[in-house]
Amino acid sequence: MAEDCNSWVVPVTLSPPSLQDNTADADRLAKALKTRLAVDPFDLHIDLETLHRIPELLRKSNYSVRCTLARDRSRWFLTGIHGGAEEGVSVGLAVDLGTTKVVLRAIDLSTGRVFGEKVFDNPQIDVGADILTRVHYAGEGSGLQDLHRQIIEAVNWHAEDLCRGCGLTPEQVLLMAVAGNTTMTHLFLGLTPYWIIREPYIPVVNRPGLLRARDLGIRAASAARVFVFPNIGSYFGGDVIAGILSSGLHEMEQTAVLVDVGTNAEVVLGNRQWLIACAGAAGPALEGGVTQMGTTAGPGVIDRVRIDSETRRFDIHTIDDGSPCGICGSGLIDLAAEMLTAGMIDIRGRFLADSCPGRFVQRDGAQHLVLLPPAETADGPAITISQADFDSLIRSKAAMYTILETIAGSVGINLQEIDRYFVAGTFGAFIRPDSAITIGMLPDLPRERFQVLGNSSLEGATKVLTSPGSLEVIDHIRDRITYLELNVNQDFMLRFSAAKFLPHTDLGRFPSVAARLPPR
Amino acid sequence: MAEDCNSWVVPVTLSPPSLQDNTADADRLAKALKTRLAVDPFDLHIDLETLHRIPELLRKSNYSVRCTLARDRSRWFLTGIHGGAEEGVSVGLAVDLGTTKVVLRAIDLSTGRVFGEKVFDNPQIDVGADILTRVHYAGEGSGLQDLHRQIIEAVNWHAEDLCRGCGLTPEQVLLMAVAGNTTMTHLFLGLTPYWIIREPYIPVVNRPGLLRARDLGIRAASAARVFVFPNIGSYFGGDVIAGILSSGLHEMEQTAVLVDVGTNAEVVLGNRQWLIACAGAAGPALEGGVTQMGTTAGPGVIDRVRIDSETRRFDIHTIDDGSPCGICGSGLIDLAAEMLTAGMIDIRGRFLADSCPGRFVQRDGAQHLVLLPPAETADGPAITISQADFDSLIRSKAAMYTILETIAGSVGINLQEIDRYFVAGTFGAFIRPDSAITIGMLPDLPRERFQVLGNSSLEGATKVLTSPGSLEVIDHIRDRITYLELNVNQDFMLRFSAAKFLPHTDLGRFPSVAARLPPR
Repeated sequence: MAEDCNSWVVPVTLSPPSLQDNTADADRLAKALKTRLAVDPFDLHIDLETLHRIPELLRKSNYSVRCTLARDRSRWFLTGIHGGAEEGVSVGLAVDLGTTKVVLRAIDLSTGRVFGEKVFDNPQIDVGADILTRVHYAGEGSGLQDLHRQIIEAVNWHAEDLCRGCGLTPEQVLLMAVAGNTTMTHLFLGLTPYWIIREPYIPVVNRPGLLRARDLGIRAASAARVFVFPNIGSYFGGDVIAGILSSGLHEMEQTAVLVDVGTNAEVVLGNRQWLIACAGAAGPALEGGVTQMGTTAGPGVIDRVRIDSETRRFDIHTIDDGSPCGICGSGLIDLAAEMLTAGMIDIRGRFLADSCPGRFVQRDGAQHLVLLPPAETADGPAITISQADFDSLIRSKAAMYTILETIAGSVGINLQEIDRYFVAGTFGAFIRPDSAITIGMLPDLPRERFQVLGNSSLEGATKVLTSPGSLEVIDHIRDRITYLELNVNQDFMLRFSAAKFLPHTDLGRFPSVAARLPPR
Repeated sequence: MAEDCNSWVVPVTLSPPSLQDNTADADRLAKALKTRLAVDPFDLHIDLETLHRIPELLRKSNYSVRCTLARDRSRWFLTGIHGGAEEGVSVGLAVDLGTTKVVLRAIDLSTGRVFGEKVFDNPQIDVGADILTRVHYAGEGSGLQDLHRQIIEAVNWHAEDLCRGCGLTPEQVLLMAVAGNTTMTHLFLGLTPYWIIREPYIPVVNRPGLLRARDLGIRAASAARVFVFPNIGSYFGGDVIAGILSSGLHEMEQTAVLVDVGTNAEVVLGNRQWLIACAGAAGPALEGGVTQMGTTAGPGVIDRVRIDSETRRFDIHTIDDGSPCGICGSGLIDLAAEMLTAGMIDIRGRFLADSCPGRFVQRDGAQHLVLLPPAETADGPAITISQADFDSLIRSKAAMYTILETIAGSVGINLQEIDRYFVAGTFGAFIRPDSAITIGMLPDLPRERFQVLGNSSLEGATKVLTSPGSLEVIDHIRDRITYLELNVNQDFMLRFSAAKFLPHTDLGRFPSVAARLPPR
């Protein structure tokens, strides 16, 4: 079966034709691959253009060839064929299709070796930083086509740039795997996201499957295919499925949870027996509750903050030690955690201006924390955080905690019974669990239970390129997940309100944090 | 299963989405079709362009739609989707891709009703009337591309013309089924026929399966698919598989034979238990043995000849009663049979000039029969048949009879034990079994055992369009056929020599003919 084959690149040697065995070239190739892969029945599709090249190629290479395959359910696709002794590689491209950033990773499909990576801004940011603006834009005139063209052109441009940098060409790319949220995926496919944001929140497609690169306008080999991760619904996208795949949660004996902290808060709870999922943005009461917190990670972005509780000196770390130019989600969580233990905010997250004179300024009638004065930043203006930013962070963390409580409660377990917490997502990639626990975003449990996954979408997409069996696993994950519609009832709102304190109204739940809090 | 659905057009009504059932549009459609067709697992592929249209279409049509499907093994394809109440038809196009003539038939995929038919010359005739010339031409420079373009453009042009005549447009064509010999199929697909005519005679592909019309350059609906009949080998093409399908031989209780009299002599013997096939041109000793006999059937072409044995008056019939412009295969067989019983040729097929003074002329040192003097023909010159034409006919009929004997002998039965003789093919469409028996091409058996099928390629292609289950049947036929390589050994040549007499050296085999022969 498919799982037996551990690469999409399969070398085969065909028995040459004879008067006694006059099977056609293409059918002979399919037969050899079928035997090699031990797949029966084996349904191989070969594009016409590839078919054209096969007779000469087989004869020139003495019937010894290197085939590159792709698969969609029971149908296999020949994405490339090379003479056995021929030079050159079969390239795979993993794509993390983020709302803000897009990450490309080029790999060798034969060996899994990474050639290189590239990160670039999703060009749709020009239309709107958030998903909602883009969805509305897509509904107007040529908006959808514009957004589709923007992302495809950007992927083409940066993929070519990445390839060139690795001594490759886009025409060597035979397989792509794309993981994104449901809206980004729709825009990538040129499909309307109109109904995604309107009740009852219906995507055009859950399982886009395998597409021809050419049909999408993607520049690659002529028979290249693009695998697009399936979604569970409008608020539970392929990026999270990629995250599950990358975490291995779906094959764990003990119960684990995957927390994807991005624009939404997506949570998956389960083990190899069952999977249950929930997304924060699905509940209207939480709208704006889980928002984009800070800048996306990148050079110069503040990702870690330490405050000396004695001197109240801020020790600020930036990514790649660049000149500071903003703060990302993990930096903001660190900041809030440190300010809480240093007594610079109260348990409701209110700035305590007296605690550190000079750090706080009044601007537009609201209090701001000056993280860095103009002289210490990259592009001039001071980096400040407003009370509103903190309020938003607190709603976000409260939503996350409440969702965790709710999903665990739905299967009758409590948060202590969860053996492993995987933290993933745009926002979760650089998170420090200790800080997230301090502000009460994650439960107060032994720190070894927490595992930060980094870019789990990209890892999941890479897995598709290196492990053919993962396609079946993905379908299996998708088919097994029970989607829990958040019922934002009175009970939920009570729990949400209780979680809006730092770390929580019930301090008994956070003993390790309580021990570090300054006396009230 | 597939056989349960008796049309490619399937109306479905989807349950509308709700918060409790947020399945995406495309997946909801697939689910409804899966239930409707009772196919599990149901792998439906929807082209991106079609996917784009689905959200609006579903909502406008209140989730009641008419889907048109196609299938390739376990994968189904959505070739068209219309609002339930929407006007318009789903059109299918059956194509008999002949070396000389191409026939198109437009049908309603919902009902099977025939809208119309059109016949046109295969434009590749300009390159060469016979297959071999075209294969050589394809090997030079842009030859292959030229031949491919010629046939595709001609099909496009005539399909549009046919559609227009029926009040349709090519964009309404959602499914095509194409049956042709292996070389014509390769040229249609733009695949090199180079290796078809070179030992060990290997096609590029045996089972082209289902292709996108667009990839072939065929003008049709954007998601239209083209089914191309599979071949068994270089000398046993999809046209014969279409013939088997159309005859029903593959499901008969009793043993039957299908004789496809075309450029080659292809023979299939079998029943619902087994099938064995053989093609005349495969044996080098028979090269030129089974050749094109006469003009292809068309208005004005002589298809029947009667000779009054008393007066030796020729009674000549032309197709559509047109002015005589040539003679087709069936006319030639009639002519030979009548001349034999009228004593105008001997049992070796030699003209007996004395038997009918004035009918025979000497030209270029060879004898010719004047069938019609210039005054009675359409375009001036007399219609004459040379001794060489007759010699060629006799080799052809001898080859056919010998192949029949050989294939029957290979399974240990004699020709009397075959219950049904289906006569098909370009050459067989108008054949009169009685005349074919008289010259010893077919065995002397009760006439009701013979059934002339007409254009069985076109009928087979039509069957694919009207009966989804026939695709599985075709694969089943192809997989079951044992191809008998003609072993042209001494034994074969002895039988061939014996069959080169009219009707045969062994007159005892042809009692009904012997009774009518003039005394020697």
